[in-house]
Amino acid sequence: MSDNKKLVEAITSMEEDFAQWYTDVVIKAELIDYTSVKGCMVIKPAGYAIWELIQRQLDDRFKETGVENVYLPMFIPESLLQKEKDHVEGFAPEVAWVTQGGLEPLQEKLCVRPTSETLFCDFYKNEVHSYRDLPKVYNQWCSVVRWEKTTRPFLRSREFLWQEGHTIHATAEEAEERTLQMLNVYADFCENVLAIPVIKGRKTDKEKFAGAIATYTIEALMHDGKALQSGTSHNFGDGFAKAFDIQYTSKDNKLEYAHQTSWGMTTRLIGAIIMVHGDNSGLVLPPRVAPIQVNIIPIAQNKPGVLEKAAELKERLSNFRVKVDDSDKSPGWKFSESEMRGIPVRIEIGPRDIENNKCILVRRDTSEKIEISLDELESKVAELLDTIQKEMLERARAHREAHTYDATTYEEFVDILNNKPGFVRAMWCGDVECENKIKEDTTATSRCMPFEGKNLSDKCVCCGKPAKALVYWGKAY
Amino acid sequence: MSDNKKLVEAITSMEEDFAQWYTDVVIKAELIDYTSVKGCMVIKPAGYAIWELIQRQLDDRFKETGVENVYLPMFIPESLLQKEKDHVEGFAPEVAWVTQGGLEPLQEKLCVRPTSETLFCDFYKNEVHSYRDLPKVYNQWCSVVRWEKTTRPFLRSREFLWQEGHTIHATAEEAEERTLQMLNVYADFCENVLAIPVIKGRKTDKEKFAGAIATYTIEALMHDGKALQSGTSHNFGDGFAKAFDIQYTSKDNKLEYAHQTSWGMTTRLIGAIIMVHGDNSGLVLPPRVAPIQVNIIPIAQNKPGVLEKAAELKERLSNFRVKVDDSDKSPGWKFSESEMRGIPVRIEIGPRDIENNKCILVRRDTSEKIEISLDELESKVAELLDTIQKEMLERARAHREAHTYDATTYEEFVDILNNKPGFVRAMWCGDVECENKIKEDTTATSRCMPFEGKNLSDKCVCCGKPAKALVYWGKAY
Repeated sequence: MSDNKKLVEAITSMEEDFAQWYTDVVIKAELIDYTSVKGCMVIKPAGYAIWELIQRQLDDRFKETGVENVYLPMFIPESLLQKEKDHVEGFAPEVAWVTQGGLEPLQEKLCVRPTSETLFCDFYKNEVHSYRDLPKVYNQWCSVVRWEKTTRPFLRSREFLWQEGHTIHATAEEAEERTLQMLNVYADFCENVLAIPVIKGRKTDKEKFAGAIATYTIEALMHDGKALQSGTSHNFGDGFAKAFDIQYTSKDNKLEYAHQTSWGMTTRLIGAIIMVHGDNSGLVLPPRVAPIQVNIIPIAQNKPGVLEKAAELKERLSNFRVKVDDSDKSPGWKFSESEMRGIPVRIEIGPRDIENNKCILVRRDTSEKIEISLDELESKVAELLDTIQKEMLERARAHREAHTYDATTYEEFVDILNNKPGFVRAMWCGDVECENKIKEDTTATSRCMPFEGKNLSDKCVCCGKPAKALVYWGKAY
Repeated sequence: MSDNKKLVEAITSMEEDFAQWYTDVVIKAELIDYTSVKGCMVIKPAGYAIWELIQRQLDDRFKETGVENVYLPMFIPESLLQKEKDHVEGFAPEVAWVTQGGLEPLQEKLCVRPTSETLFCDFYKNEVHSYRDLPKVYNQWCSVVRWEKTTRPFLRSREFLWQEGHTIHATAEEAEERTLQMLNVYADFCENVLAIPVIKGRKTDKEKFAGAIATYTIEALMHDGKALQSGTSHNFGDGFAKAFDIQYTSKDNKLEYAHQTSWGMTTRLIGAIIMVHGDNSGLVLPPRVAPIQVNIIPIAQNKPGVLEKAAELKERLSNFRVKVDDSDKSPGWKFSESEMRGIPVRIEIGPRDIENNKCILVRRDTSEKIEISLDELESKVAELLDTIQKEMLERARAHREAHTYDATTYEEFVDILNNKPGFVRAMWCGDVECENKIKEDTTATSRCMPFEGKNLSDKCVCCGKPAKALVYWGKAY
């Protein structure tokens, strides 16, 4: 029991210190470890296995929409990075520079890609000549580097893993359509795979991507009431095409600039899973991204037949990701560890259960214990995993609804932001000055102008001038 | 027909200029493109899809042996790289150095990983304390950088994709066992998936990995008679553990140094596929790594019912990776393109075939045409893909056997190496001086000391002193 206690006591409660709770979970659930490379982490097997499940399922969804994967170099020559003015301004301050190759200094320094728009432009310039070459709908899975000053595991690190889609189209309409299509793929993936509900919307000019004409985003609410930008999709119009001179011959034989998009999701999603679903016993994983979905824990495993029965149950559950914990730790220790790692269902099976042809299923998300007959094992486990997946999304949605407020006066607006964690919906005039003032007064930022939502008033909540858009505001990671 | 000709004429024949043939194939089959980043390439969709099939199948085989995937940083601080003396000497001359992060110079420069032994050691030092923490059998899929002077697509480039496995064990025996186990996984994968037969053996000290006590290798023979090192597996003994002070408490409570291994395979395998199987019409892909296995080409596709029938066949072949080429190009052009891209089977289906309930299957590897009844489509295609896979391996093996020679005198040895492309088996005394002399006289290197093979004589082929080992010699990529 002391082992058991040690494991659990080591987590700070989230009510006491959410940031420390988060750090405790990533370490105790063995998702990451720190390294000698400042600002970079090791993603350990339990963390990487979640990323593999995210990759596989997201990649399948991409391919259903016609995406093809490619791989471009990790280095960007300085002259290439500088071709698009807004883009270089946005990224140059936070890139890592390679200045020496082998024993010699480089003639032109290379940055380690923070994102690959410029490389894709350089590539598309060679590939795209005629309307017949369009569209190209490419994606790559890779790591990128941004020289952040303050870092946190998964949420902000100097190197992170992601996918970056980069597409090029004949028309502005087609580019806009693809931008929104991928945002919808992201939103659907978050809700149906990660059980994280998201607000879809457009970023204000202040918050949009460097070089984009429009950035769309999905925003999720964490358990502490802070927002997490969980995926973005950008429409570049023909801005990059003009900077890189990417022209094609149209059907009626005219030279036209192409239209481009890009869209990305990162290992940050693992941070979102932790902060949306986790609790004071550790990680809680939605079944669809749980590397182990069912943990079979034999009780009194030294008694004859128990381990054999546990192995038999595993065999019968071969449609799921199942582990038998037959280590020499106590059952209590194993329960705690299974909870810490967020395994959706644990099965307890001991001599008396075997005698009665029964076993106990325990839900990680609610702690509910369910006694079932072994005859109905497969169907009950399948049903329970579906129920957990569905109810985790519902609970996260209910939490978000309960922490989303409307404000029509500035007093009310500031009061909510300072005292109630969550999203605040309020009208905005469209001026960056109001965004700046709000940030100064509350540290909150505009998260997005949502696709859905009614007008709350006809005046900007900040300056009182005529309102142009409804905005979700929040403090963000 | 002119289009058709253009596509085919653009390839240099391999008999005329093998290097140019290779370059023509990688470009014309749209596997890669060159970039503005010197020595780095873009892997295009047709090339990356092959890599995805390699990754998926190799990763499955790894996991069957208990491997877990992780991700470590791409940067190595200079002080970390320098901890193991042989290792730093081997790699320091060819790494890229990051000296600036954001707007400021770094206090300690970081190299972009050329390989990650030092990072894994730094990680394992924190993770391994007791015999209970061992073994750890980790792998990562990532890109690495080596600042090569001369580069060739897939074979040698400044950045390439690979997997690197890094394991740590309690005993020397267990480390040696894992080193050989992974070599066997590699060999089996090459033969059964890539249809490339390999020679398994051990590297001489001159050719082994920087810091290893033993390097094992699989060596394949390309169509031009040159050798390609296709995968390596290293046993480090406790050398790295001593350099990084990785000790664990054994069962009997003593402090012991751990034993480590590493093993890797790279995108170079795509180069091997091209050079083992390709021909003067382009790429020839083994079915198991062919992104498209069957290309259905409708004949007279404007005639009623033809495209519908092609779609129906595709539907019926949904167990395979199938495409219908319904572009507006001529059938002849489509045949050539299908050949260039190496698609294992093409199906020709036109109005007369439909009338007769037949279609034609054409093998990419032999050009054989087979008329079949549409009733037996699924079974015949499955059978044909199996046959192609099997016969491609057999042909590659026969080619290697026909280009493997034995030599017992130095005159004979040099004569073969200078005049007959292929492997030469000959005895060796174990001295590096003989390896150096052979390299100087012939440009050939020792490829490996094979696990299987009889002694050809009791004297070194070079110096005449007592022989210690049989060696495969060859000119290598």
